[in-house]
Amino acid sequence: LSTDAMSPKITVELLRQLRQVMKNSKYITEPIQAYIVPSGDAHQSEYIAPCDCRREFICGFNGSAGTAIVTEQHAALWTDGRYFLQASQQMDNNWTLMKMGLKETPSQEDWLISVLPENSKVGVDPWIIAADQWKNMSKALSSAGHSLVAVQDNLIDVIWEDRPARPSTKLITLGLKHTGLTWQDKVTALRGKMAERKISWFVVTALDEIAWLFNLRGSDIEYNPVFFAYAIIGMSNIKLFVDRKRLMEPVVREHLELDSPSKPELTIQCFPYESVYMELQAVCAALAPKEKMWICDKASCALTQVIPKAHRSAIPYTPLCLAKAVKNPTEIQGMKMAHIKDAVALCELFAWLEKEIPKGTVTEISVADKAEELRSQQKDFVGLSFPTISSVGPNGAIIHYMPLPETNRTLSLNEIYLIDSGAQYLDGTTDVTRTVHFGTPTDYEKECFTYVLKGHIAVSAAVFPNGTKGHLLDSFARAALWDSGLDYLHGTGHGVGCFLNVHEGPCGISYKTFADEPLEAGMIVSDEPGYYEDGSFGIRIENVVLVIPAKTKYNYRNRGSLTFEPLTLVPIQLKMINTDLLTQKERDWVNDYHKKCRETIGAELERQGRKEALDWLIRETQPIV
Amino acid sequence: LSTDAMSPKITVELLRQLRQVMKNSKYITEPIQAYIVPSGDAHQSEYIAPCDCRREFICGFNGSAGTAIVTEQHAALWTDGRYFLQASQQMDNNWTLMKMGLKETPSQEDWLISVLPENSKVGVDPWIIAADQWKNMSKALSSAGHSLVAVQDNLIDVIWEDRPARPSTKLITLGLKHTGLTWQDKVTALRGKMAERKISWFVVTALDEIAWLFNLRGSDIEYNPVFFAYAIIGMSNIKLFVDRKRLMEPVVREHLELDSPSKPELTIQCFPYESVYMELQAVCAALAPKEKMWICDKASCALTQVIPKAHRSAIPYTPLCLAKAVKNPTEIQGMKMAHIKDAVALCELFAWLEKEIPKGTVTEISVADKAEELRSQQKDFVGLSFPTISSVGPNGAIIHYMPLPETNRTLSLNEIYLIDSGAQYLDGTTDVTRTVHFGTPTDYEKECFTYVLKGHIAVSAAVFPNGTKGHLLDSFARAALWDSGLDYLHGTGHGVGCFLNVHEGPCGISYKTFADEPLEAGMIVSDEPGYYEDGSFGIRIENVVLVIPAKTKYNYRNRGSLTFEPLTLVPIQLKMINTDLLTQKERDWVNDYHKKCRETIGAELERQGRKEALDWLIRETQPIV
Repeated sequence: LSTDAMSPKITVELLRQLRQVMKNSKYITEPIQAYIVPSGDAHQSEYIAPCDCRREFICGFNGSAGTAIVTEQHAALWTDGRYFLQASQQMDNNWTLMKMGLKETPSQEDWLISVLPENSKVGVDPWIIAADQWKNMSKALSSAGHSLVAVQDNLIDVIWEDRPARPSTKLITLGLKHTGLTWQDKVTALRGKMAERKISWFVVTALDEIAWLFNLRGSDIEYNPVFFAYAIIGMSNIKLFVDRKRLMEPVVREHLELDSPSKPELTIQCFPYESVYMELQAVCAALAPKEKMWICDKASCALTQVIPKAHRSAIPYTPLCLAKAVKNPTEIQGMKMAHIKDAVALCELFAWLEKEIPKGTVTEISVADKAEELRSQQKDFVGLSFPTISSVGPNGAIIHYMPLPETNRTLSLNEIYLIDSGAQYLDGTTDVTRTVHFGTPTDYEKECFTYVLKGHIAVSAAVFPNGTKGHLLDSFARAALWDSGLDYLHGTGHGVGCFLNVHEGPCGISYKTFADEPLEAGMIVSDEPGYYEDGSFGIRIENVVLVIPAKTKYNYRNRGSLTFEPLTLVPIQLKMINTDLLTQKERDWVNDYHKKCRETIGAELERQGRKEALDWLIRETQPIV
Repeated sequence: LSTDAMSPKITVELLRQLRQVMKNSKYITEPIQAYIVPSGDAHQSEYIAPCDCRREFICGFNGSAGTAIVTEQHAALWTDGRYFLQASQQMDNNWTLMKMGLKETPSQEDWLISVLPENSKVGVDPWIIAADQWKNMSKALSSAGHSLVAVQDNLIDVIWEDRPARPSTKLITLGLKHTGLTWQDKVTALRGKMAERKISWFVVTALDEIAWLFNLRGSDIEYNPVFFAYAIIGMSNIKLFVDRKRLMEPVVREHLELDSPSKPELTIQCFPYESVYMELQAVCAALAPKEKMWICDKASCALTQVIPKAHRSAIPYTPLCLAKAVKNPTEIQGMKMAHIKDAVALCELFAWLEKEIPKGTVTEISVADKAEELRSQQKDFVGLSFPTISSVGPNGAIIHYMPLPETNRTLSLNEIYLIDSGAQYLDGTTDVTRTVHFGTPTDYEKECFTYVLKGHIAVSAAVFPNGTKGHLLDSFARAALWDSGLDYLHGTGHGVGCFLNVHEGPCGISYKTFADEPLEAGMIVSDEPGYYEDGSFGIRIENVVLVIPAKTKYNYRNRGSLTFEPLTLVPIQLKMINTDLLTQKERDWVNDYHKKCRETIGAELERQGRKEALDWLIRETQPIV
């Protein structure tokens, strides 16, 4: 991270240049009165590569979510509550911050309509706006007499002199040991789903879907082991679009059977990454009248519009997204192993912290570094799965906090410490939050922590029918907080990939009801209720949990029931719990959980000869009485 | 109810006639290949008048939900799980029953597309299909090369020889004592909402909204105290469309100030019911370019399409629907009074049942009749609010069961008895379900009852932030059942009108997330979890509850909290409870609830001199220890 992330970027000259190219016929057929700069890349990735940080380049704000819009007179940035402070610090006064979620904040559409002259043209790069967003924006603008136009040259790239190159990192091939299924099996299963729905082609645009399908990983984007690629899968064709030099490696060639395909329908045709547009046009031109092609409705507008409407079947979740979400036994085993190794690193970390904190030299940044160092000692460690949130006292109330030199606080015996961190291992992805106190927490801190814990347990121990959607479990996480008039303003859980993105669809646990396919056995989600008191402290207790069948006394209409099994096995600090507020069932849950931590992680600590961490673990997992 | 409701209607001749008129140029410009007969009336009412029972007329099925479609070759009826048995018994074999909710059942659109010849025309009466349904159906048919066409003459009416006349019952005027607000105040408040959103006209089509707005009631539709009317409200106009002879009554003329309006903008212009179409056309023709008109997206396609798109603002809930849902202090007081009177009648009923059942002469029908008789003795009784569900043993498992002579069971000491009933009083509407056993329930019956009770309490005692939507509370009602692998396949609660429809929007408590505006203080909903064991018994515990502010220890972000206060005050049978399964909190809830029943209803029973019922009440409200 750059050390000046919190000083505003000076954008006078950049805005002048951008407004010039907005009228320059070299780049656009007719002048545009506004230009939209979305956050994402051409694959609608949540995390993006430096070359795709165009919104940050133009306005200075580098948070994960936000859209910039520049008109002849104005420049405005929309972002959500997590980023109000950060955005206001990173942008100069040429920019207006539009605080999403506040009643008085206009939507992008409403704002554009209020500031634009009549019959305006609003430009956007069709590759980085999703088809469904294009549709909504276009409709709103049209209804007010304006029009949304696709600008083929990205106008930020035009003025971005030292724009980094698109990464093309080395590909990692994953064998059956890690994947449980060959890519050939996955393609065959996918074709089965296509045949069921009479679909003859499927355009794959999400990077994690391509990585999962081909059992390949890359490191083009920090924290996400993916690589830039597209794929077009037909009933007897596999077209892979990826930088060709990545396919020179013999191990990759062998993995993909490029030189000796076993069957014609499992032969991969390779194309350069950039040629996906032309090739998709060619495929579409050859379609029979009734042939249908799947594409996700979150794919880029550019690719989506290549497919003639009559042939296009836009779907909210692709069959790969659904298949990837339900982990197979090998993936489940890998996730369990990854979580054991991760717990070993965290036990070491906490044992180390207890010794070091009294010295007064441990800071948010140094803990994050130490955690990374300890994780990197574990087998098959690849990297972190997201930037470590390491926060002391009031910093803990900033939900997506990352320590920077100018905000860095020292850990002490007087303040709550929250660490939300995770890693990528070859066998799985982790994500865990623990909130601890190294001195004596106040009664109020313990009370809040205990409500959060009750919510965590209520979700983790919930039994619910097969086919239940995650949003129906969200209130279980909040009931104890609600009873006391408290709450937290984020969802309770997200899907987690297996050596893939730490956030993945299509399931989750949230009061929001989009992105919410029914839960089924084998899915893996996080369970992470919290409580945040601005200016004081933050509390979050997060485990990654596996959806498993539940044994119940009865079985209504033979539907079967589900529950969760925690994969994360790191003690929950007993000192923070007011045990009087727990029911007997909740006390039993804590004791059972700690017993499992002691047995499973204890054995591994023993094996690795990590004596101090083992002592710490045994001390921290004593039963509550 | 007709005694032959369960023998199939012979439809050969009717279908022949309908298929003839589908090709008869007297009624349609071009022959249609299919005709859709929806369930509702021109106001999308849930309950309908006999003249609107067109779907029942053509197929024989008389449930509250269902759509018939007739093509040249086929006749099919779509209905949901509540009605599979009833529909199969009421329809002859010219009809195919389409069981909605089952995976293998095609949607109406998909089925039409599969059976129609190319380029078919599908007809529907635009007055009885909602605008949003029209839109979806039309889109689906167009995408397959067919078209949906509006048939102005209702083709069922053409072949329905002895179709009843549209009712035009006497209007009841409600004074401030019952409404808390004059209709003039309501119109003024509505115009305030319109001004806020820059809306100059609002077309009111829902019958309960018109009744509420004008403080009038009727009895055109059984159980629902509404009358056939439309209204068009402008910023300085009030146009009321209603059968003119209803406005002859001096009390009505005076109430509406027809002869001496106080102010010009509060002058009601009266028009015949049928002239709404022409008058709306005239209003639309005179609109200024930027004027906008509100209409509910559930209003009829016919009226909606009169409004040019540029002027039309279709909204999911109207401001009247929202205003009506939040009861004012007078309405709340009225609802409380109505529930006290209703509880008196039910206490009498249960005391009577205890004496009578051993004689072996009490049947489902005779209890329903007795309940109506007892309710009718209470002040300001108007009628029932829905057909009484009175069910013994296995009949209780049929969620929308109504006793008929051929299904009528005798109450005994051996089977569970479920009664779901309610009434309309001038001051309020009631809806209550109690499940009781007059002998000794089995352990299993008690276990299931106790889970349902735990769910009932979990909702009733829930504390949640202001602005929470009802669907987020639904799982609280199910958690205890889910833990044991049980569930129920209906929502947990619906909005309840005040001397209006027993089912009203826009709030409720359901796993379904449509029709779900945030809960706020003053809203009134039902809390009615259940458990149904096919062939054995049904359990449901239903109270009507008022949303009230909750006092909490803390107040996160000053949002404030809400909870529920039961309006229904009828004892829950202690004999059915396995108190070992209750937590101390739940036992306290039961005891507090019963204390309130004893005090409030006891005082009224005393006042009314109903000694036996009072004895019963005192006996049934002993605290659990």
